[in-house]
Amino acid sequence: MKKQDNLKLKVIPLGGLEQIGMNMTAIEYGDTIIVVDCGLSFPSDDMLGIDLVIPDVTYLVENAHKVKGFFITHGHEDHIGAIPYVLKQVAAPLYGTKLTLGIIENKLKEHNMTRSVKRKVVKYGQSITAGDFRVEFIRVNHSIVDAAALAIFTPVGTLIHTGDFKIDYTPLFGDPTDLTRFAELGKKGVLAMLCESTNVLREGFTMSERTVARTFDTLFAQHEHSRIIVATFASNVDRVRQIINTAYRYGRKVVVEGRSMVNIISTAQELGYIKMPEGCLINIEDLKKYPKEKTVLVTTGSQGESMAALSRMAASIHRKVSIEPGDTIILSSSPIPGNEKAISKVINELAQLGANVIFQDTHVSGHGCQEEIKLLYSLVKPKYSIPIHGEYRHLQTHARMVQEMGIPKENTFVLHSGAVLEMDENGASVTGDVPAGAVLVDGLGVGDVGNIVLRDRQTLAQHGIIIVVAVLERGSNQLLSGPEIVTRGFVYVRESEQLMEDAKSVVMGSLIECHDKRVNDWSKIKNTIRDDLSDYLWKRMKRSPMILPIIMEA
Amino acid sequence: MKKQDNLKLKVIPLGGLEQIGMNMTAIEYGDTIIVVDCGLSFPSDDMLGIDLVIPDVTYLVENAHKVKGFFITHGHEDHIGAIPYVLKQVAAPLYGTKLTLGIIENKLKEHNMTRSVKRKVVKYGQSITAGDFRVEFIRVNHSIVDAAALAIFTPVGTLIHTGDFKIDYTPLFGDPTDLTRFAELGKKGVLAMLCESTNVLREGFTMSERTVARTFDTLFAQHEHSRIIVATFASNVDRVRQIINTAYRYGRKVVVEGRSMVNIISTAQELGYIKMPEGCLINIEDLKKYPKEKTVLVTTGSQGESMAALSRMAASIHRKVSIEPGDTIILSSSPIPGNEKAISKVINELAQLGANVIFQDTHVSGHGCQEEIKLLYSLVKPKYSIPIHGEYRHLQTHARMVQEMGIPKENTFVLHSGAVLEMDENGASVTGDVPAGAVLVDGLGVGDVGNIVLRDRQTLAQHGIIIVVAVLERGSNQLLSGPEIVTRGFVYVRESEQLMEDAKSVVMGSLIECHDKRVNDWSKIKNTIRDDLSDYLWKRMKRSPMILPIIMEA
Repeated sequence: MKKQDNLKLKVIPLGGLEQIGMNMTAIEYGDTIIVVDCGLSFPSDDMLGIDLVIPDVTYLVENAHKVKGFFITHGHEDHIGAIPYVLKQVAAPLYGTKLTLGIIENKLKEHNMTRSVKRKVVKYGQSITAGDFRVEFIRVNHSIVDAAALAIFTPVGTLIHTGDFKIDYTPLFGDPTDLTRFAELGKKGVLAMLCESTNVLREGFTMSERTVARTFDTLFAQHEHSRIIVATFASNVDRVRQIINTAYRYGRKVVVEGRSMVNIISTAQELGYIKMPEGCLINIEDLKKYPKEKTVLVTTGSQGESMAALSRMAASIHRKVSIEPGDTIILSSSPIPGNEKAISKVINELAQLGANVIFQDTHVSGHGCQEEIKLLYSLVKPKYSIPIHGEYRHLQTHARMVQEMGIPKENTFVLHSGAVLEMDENGASVTGDVPAGAVLVDGLGVGDVGNIVLRDRQTLAQHGIIIVVAVLERGSNQLLSGPEIVTRGFVYVRESEQLMEDAKSVVMGSLIECHDKRVNDWSKIKNTIRDDLSDYLWKRMKRSPMILPIIMEA
Repeated sequence: MKKQDNLKLKVIPLGGLEQIGMNMTAIEYGDTIIVVDCGLSFPSDDMLGIDLVIPDVTYLVENAHKVKGFFITHGHEDHIGAIPYVLKQVAAPLYGTKLTLGIIENKLKEHNMTRSVKRKVVKYGQSITAGDFRVEFIRVNHSIVDAAALAIFTPVGTLIHTGDFKIDYTPLFGDPTDLTRFAELGKKGVLAMLCESTNVLREGFTMSERTVARTFDTLFAQHEHSRIIVATFASNVDRVRQIINTAYRYGRKVVVEGRSMVNIISTAQELGYIKMPEGCLINIEDLKKYPKEKTVLVTTGSQGESMAALSRMAASIHRKVSIEPGDTIILSSSPIPGNEKAISKVINELAQLGANVIFQDTHVSGHGCQEEIKLLYSLVKPKYSIPIHGEYRHLQTHARMVQEMGIPKENTFVLHSGAVLEMDENGASVTGDVPAGAVLVDGLGVGDVGNIVLRDRQTLAQHGIIIVVAVLERGSNQLLSGPEIVTRGFVYVRESEQLMEDAKSVVMGSLIECHDKRVNDWSKIKNTIRDDLSDYLWKRMKRSPMILPIIMEA
């Protein structure tokens, strides 16, 4: 590397645009790299059988000696989920606010990493020195408490990374986004802002969390004679806290149900983020001791996730809670794109059990809309704009929006994963690429499922597999046994005996043809079988199952 | 069957609630059955490899001698798609308006059925006698022209089936829904109304198609310097017609692209439903002869369907159209639930190619909202309400809404597929069930893929398959060859040679164990292999591929 390169500040998104949710950005200068966030993503529909998707951190591994720390903006999966996987490859300290690190703690425990990973709780306004950088945590509102933006002071200038944010002038708990600090930094001069784009397609302002509180009040008053079940995001600590408070005011006992919610709420309680009114929280086993109309269940499953508590209740397979006619069920969330059908399914099942399902006006977003994003830009006045957190159309809309605010087009950067944006006093430009992309996690395997395997799974999913086994005599290639044909996921064989007989005849034909033509090369014999059978099935059924000939020698 | 049963009027939904889109209702009295609509549904996510879903018509086949006709309300797939499949099983004449039968004609041609199927064009206001019934077609507005509701006059009373409808007081083409006729029928007395529920969760009124025309006018004026591409539903003849008219006014040439759209628009043109301004329509091959800003492409793919024209343009694999920076692309549709992610993908790809994608305020629904549904009820005043066309939550909301209008709860019927609702002068009740459900179409196979095959496909899709082949000596069961292990969709084998070796050792262990214990039953040997290997893989990788042991004898 040339000496001169070292004097430039580099911003390198290692995930995000191509795989939404996998939020991670490396910031580099000289011998210092810091990483902001370390999120995971959930598999897209074509990633069959994949559990999680994490970022490719080859670049960090190759530069591990430079990595001074991971700075985490808040405790959501799309910002912390890949931590155990990445920190196994790159050891560096973790920095975050108290609740953020509390939630990460649970993950480290699961992976037996609590001893090996250094971590430090940071307060709003506090700064951490990391190599050539100083990193300050700034208070922002979001759908989880203790969320932060970061000011990163570098030798080339100040960067601001917003994390996820909204501007809530009347938050239910805690204080509003620290606009004063953003204004102060803006006055001193900010080189670049990496700003989130989740709601950039929406005009106006996101409503305050307080509006949801009013809706809950009304709903609890209206449904005073029935049990109330509220499903929301496990990590929305403020939402759960206000449901508990409302329940308490209406003299109801509260049960929290669903593993991820229990985990996060316990952590929040231990750390003092939820003060539970005396005797309000009860065990799910004790539900029966109270009249229905004196209870509230707060549960996971608002996105229709098939294994979550609400879905299990809807499918009547929850071991402890049965939905009964008259139950009032509130979905306090909005659908994440792609989950609409699953949510509909759960609502239909609940309705069929006689429950009254309410899903309108019971949620506000944790992300700022256009006017909030503009407000932040007008305070921070960055020289360069780097839209982050969104699909291409979000980032593009974001860039166009700030261009209307006066940031020159050439100073806005929509970066793909792995792009290296270099900045110094003379300017900014994308100068290259580092390896970046999605690493697939399937069970305990990290990265051992790639495109070939996924393509096979897609083919298998479409029309199943036909396995053809023949035993040939060693040397002579005479057929000793078979061909046997076994299928899975193709047709229901008991009803298709004739089809199987016909397929066997086709394979016999292929074998005889190979024998007559003295084809001895097994791979050629296999190809002949595959081609002949494939043609036959397409003509007869217009289907293309995977065909797998296996030749054994005996 | 007892004589008395024959005096009751039966309403039997043969599809709908459990499989949205598969709209079909049988109406029976004595020796007369008529069928209203004959729709297909698209496979849900768990129906891997399935192309289409059609209704089980066992009941119609068993009563084929009674079936006097199929009455089709309009030409959308969810009302006509199963016609070729069903009419192969039950021969009866088809009745519908001119465009509806014109679109069906294309389907019959594809299936070589134009000669065998009798069909008759019916005009609004005209009646058809079918056995003991008389069926009148009533004009309604919908997102396709020539849509009809049906008044079915029976010995027990009058039924009204709304088909799909909205009330558009200012339609762009043709006349508004024939409210007068509904009022007249209501005055005379209507026994029951089967009314659609698509938009029953939405308050208020659906906007007029005319509002879209205004948006198009504005967009064409704003984007006078760029090519315009509009994607919409192939079957929305009025929408396409107004795009063509707008294009003509702005001096642009029009290309229609996408097979299904070309088919329907040609049919509509031949039958006189679209009057094309002289010289306005050009061939896609001639696009290059005109300046970009003097052209409009109307295309399929507004739902992100992967093989549709717009998706191919977005993926840069369309053979005749390349998206270029500055193109204006209008998605004139709203997402059908489940398609959100696919649509986002297309928008992102188009944006990355530099196009300007517009998708807001460019569509109105073809279905009436709550106030329109209430208006129809207030005119028709049916004794019984039978909500149709919707998921359970739609039908339930519909039933509750009309109960608020004064229809007694016991007179509203949310029917599952196959339920038999019997009505006579004394009352109405569900008296039983007939076979009903989904028949899966995969390639040329109708109904040969069932639950076992689908479950296998799901397993294969998740973690692939491991095939274990061993050749045993006839009689002695000595291992002659193998075990061979072949996998597909499991792991990338070249990187997992050690794993394959270890798996082979596990299988050898199972074989040796069986041999030592003198287990000669092949199914027991196979089970041992399956269990041992399955345990091993779960412990090592937390994965559960399908394991398929095959034993050959030689």
